[in-house]
Order: sequence, then structure tokens, then C-alpha cells
Amino acid sequence: MDKRRLLLISSSGVHGRGYLDHAMPEILPFIAGIREVLFIPYAKKDRDAYAEKIREHMGREGIKVRSVHEFSDPVKAVIDAESVFTGGGNTFLLVTELYRQKLMEPIREKALRGMPYFGASAGSNIAGLTMKTTNDMPIVYPPSFDTLGLVPFTINPHYTDPLPEGLQAGETRAERLKEFHEWNDNPVVALRQEAMLLMENGSILIKGGQGVKIFRKGEEPEDLVPGEKLDHLL
Amino acid sequence: MDKRRLLLISSSGVHGRGYLDHAMPEILPFIAGIREVLFIPYAKKDRDAYAEKIREHMGREGIKVRSVHEFSDPVKAVIDAESVFTGGGNTFLLVTELYRQKLMEPIREKALRGMPYFGASAGSNIAGLTMKTTNDMPIVYPPSFDTLGLVPFTINPHYTDPLPEGLQAGETRAERLKEFHEWNDNPVVALRQEAMLLMENGSILIKGGQGVKIFRKGEEPEDLVPGEKLDHLL
Repeated sequence: MDKRRLLLISSSGVHGRGYLDHAMPEILPFIAGIREVLFIPYAKKDRDAYAEKIREHMGREGIKVRSVHEFSDPVKAVIDAESVFTGGGNTFLLVTELYRQKLMEPIREKALRGMPYFGASAGSNIAGLTMKTTNDMPIVYPPSFDTLGLVPFTINPHYTDPLPEGLQAGETRAERLKEFHEWNDNPVVALRQEAMLLMENGSILIKGGQGVKIFRKGEEPEDLVPGEKLDHLL
Repeated sequence: MDKRRLLLISSSGVHGRGYLDHAMPEILPFIAGIREVLFIPYAKKDRDAYAEKIREHMGREGIKVRSVHEFSDPVKAVIDAESVFTGGGNTFLLVTELYRQKLMEPIREKALRGMPYFGASAGSNIAGLTMKTTNDMPIVYPPSFDTLGLVPFTINPHYTDPLPEGLQAGETRAERLKEFHEWNDNPVVALRQEAMLLMENGSILIKGGQGVKIFRKGEEPEDLVPGEKLDHLL
């Protein structure tokens, strides 16, 4: 039986609303019964400040948070965790530090065995097979682009449709993802800003205020809306 | 004596003009007297088509072009080259293939000894210390982010100022470059779309229709316009 429980949020902020506010209606039932969430702050440099921000926002909802960087043994912290939440920031930083701390494999194993894993932006991207469809700048060199592989595709967070003529600087996101498929075979699930994926009971449901676009090698992209499932990708 | 001769073009296309048209007034005097230019097509997948395009555009100006992928010994092709031009595309692809073909070092050595090197977009980015300020998607994993190091800074091509409120998706370019400086010390020269850098006689001059913005760690960015020099960075 497939035990995976994942909530993959495109963005921690959507226009006009506070940090994670739009995602709380999904986060709260997702971690119902969990006493403490383990936070992964590595996508940003100032880990103390980032952990404090998350603690404040989650605390308002009655969720207790500890950050993995506050533990002397981060691997043990993951092994003991009831749930893991990875925040957004720079995916290259996040992946570099997850490898350095040897946390990629423990998080993966726990999540495959049913520990609720949730993430926003870079934290959602790393649930995919690789980080190759991140939008971030490569400010540090990770030892690998391979990520958790909790879902059999790569994730492009913050998907944007082309801007009006003249405002589009350089290629569109869709053109970049097409170029990805010149060198890679796996599907890409592009999450619009307000989209989320909820995986439980062996099924992936689209949640949130916007839908997703699926890019497959050599095929036209497929648009799906909240309420529809991605089970054909499993 | 500093023998470097470099022409680093932000973009191969600017709004409303044909491929490289805006750069030709700089390219032609830069390679005056050169009989044949060696083209590096690795930033795009279809090398034959890319070489053909360059041959056509350069041919109109009377410049003969051969592409490095047409040689059985690419290293020898570089060693024998009178001038090297690297085209734009995906910087991750370009750097991966330059390492695979063992061309990074020969190009570097030739350029330091005075062979005219010119590039556009990804081809300009790799003249810097590292590719860490590229805007491209990491669709393949290069063996290193280190690049030619022909200039003592990194280059951000296609620099764009922030879009109006509401149209800016995610962080601005300036915010990304600030994040780069949380982990790296060297200056970044951000080239606006129509900007170019011309290095000769130990001096770097800003050319083209737009200027550059210099980002340094912990300092306010500095705006410079065409006609000004970057010699304080050397």
C-alpha cells in the first residue's frame, strides 16, 4: 500500500495575502494530530530568522515548530520527526545543504513510509525527481541535481503564463520547459502560483486557487484545474 | 602586457532588430583582419542548425565561420583558431559540453594570449569567473560552475530592472544578485539587453545602446553608461 502523504505548495505567498495564509486551509487538516513539525530552513541563509518566522506563523494556528538547524544531530531529528516542512528560498542552497547534512536519504525514507511531508516553492521542487526545473539562480554548486524523488516527475513552482508582448524578457517558462525535454524524459508538473498538490491514499489531487500545467516530452501541454487528479502520472 | 581582446554581448537579439544586428558595428572592427571565426554552438541542442544560422548572419558581413562541432579534433580546432565566438542558449548545456570536450582550458589560454574572444548571452557569461549569475534553467548538471575567468567578475546577461508592481513574478533580478553575494564575494557586472563590454589594451569599455549595473557585496549597485570604463574592477 502506498503510504505517501505529501502537500506540495507552489508559493508561500500569493498576492495580497500573508505568509502561507492561502495554504493554511490545506496544511491544518494535513497535519491534524501532529504535535510538532520539523522545519528545514536551508533554502535561506539566516536560519534563525527563518525558523522564527515559521514558528510565528505556524504558532498562530497552534502548530509547534522546531528547526532542524537547532538540533546537534540533524539526521536523528529527521528520523524522530512526526512531519517535515521545507520552506522556500533558493533551491541550489537547499539541495547543497541537504546533501552536506546527509538529510536527503532520511527525509526520503521517512516520507515513503508515511511521514507527512510538506513544502513550499523550493521545498516542493525537491519532492520531485530532480531540481532541474527550478527557477532559481545557481549561486552555489550542489553535489547533485537529484532530489527526494517522492513523485515520479519534476516540479516547476511559480509557473507563469507568457507576459504580454514587449514585457516578456527572454524566453517564456513554457519554452524553458520545452528545452528541459530536449535533454530529459520525465514529465514536468508546473504549479501556478496558487496551486498545490495533495498526495494521499495513492492519489494526487490538485488543490488551491489555481491549476497546473503538465509538460511531457514531444507532446502539447495539458491544463488541469483544482479538483482534478494527477494519477495518470503515477 | 595585457593581451586580452574580448567582446561580451548581453543579448544576440534586441527588440525589433535581426539576429546580432545591433552588435555588428562592434563585431566587425573587433575581428578586422581575421579570415575565419570558430563558432561554439554547444548552448543549443541542434548544432548543425545553429552553425548554419551563424554562418548565414556572419556571411552577409563577409565573415567566414566554421563550427567546432564540425571538427574531428575540437581541441585542435581551438588551438588553431584565429578568433572564437560562443553563441547564446542554455549556459548549463554550454558549460557541460565545454568540459566534456575539454575545451575550457584551451579557450582560456588562447584568449589570455590575445586571441579575440567574443560571445553573446551564455557565451558572455562564461567569460566570467563562474556561471553562477546565469538566468538559465539547470536542465543538465555540469561538472563545475567555474568558467573561463577572462574577467575578474561574474556576468549577468539580459539584466532587467524590476517590472511594475503586480507584473513582477517572484524576486527581482537585483534581489537574486544580492542573494548571490550572501555566498560569493566577487563583483557582478549586469549587462542590460543592449549593453556590451569591449576589453582591449588592458581596459574594459562599455559599448552598445544601454549601460551596466555593478553589484558588489554589501554595497549599493553602481550604474554605468556606454562610454564609461570598468577598469576599477581589474
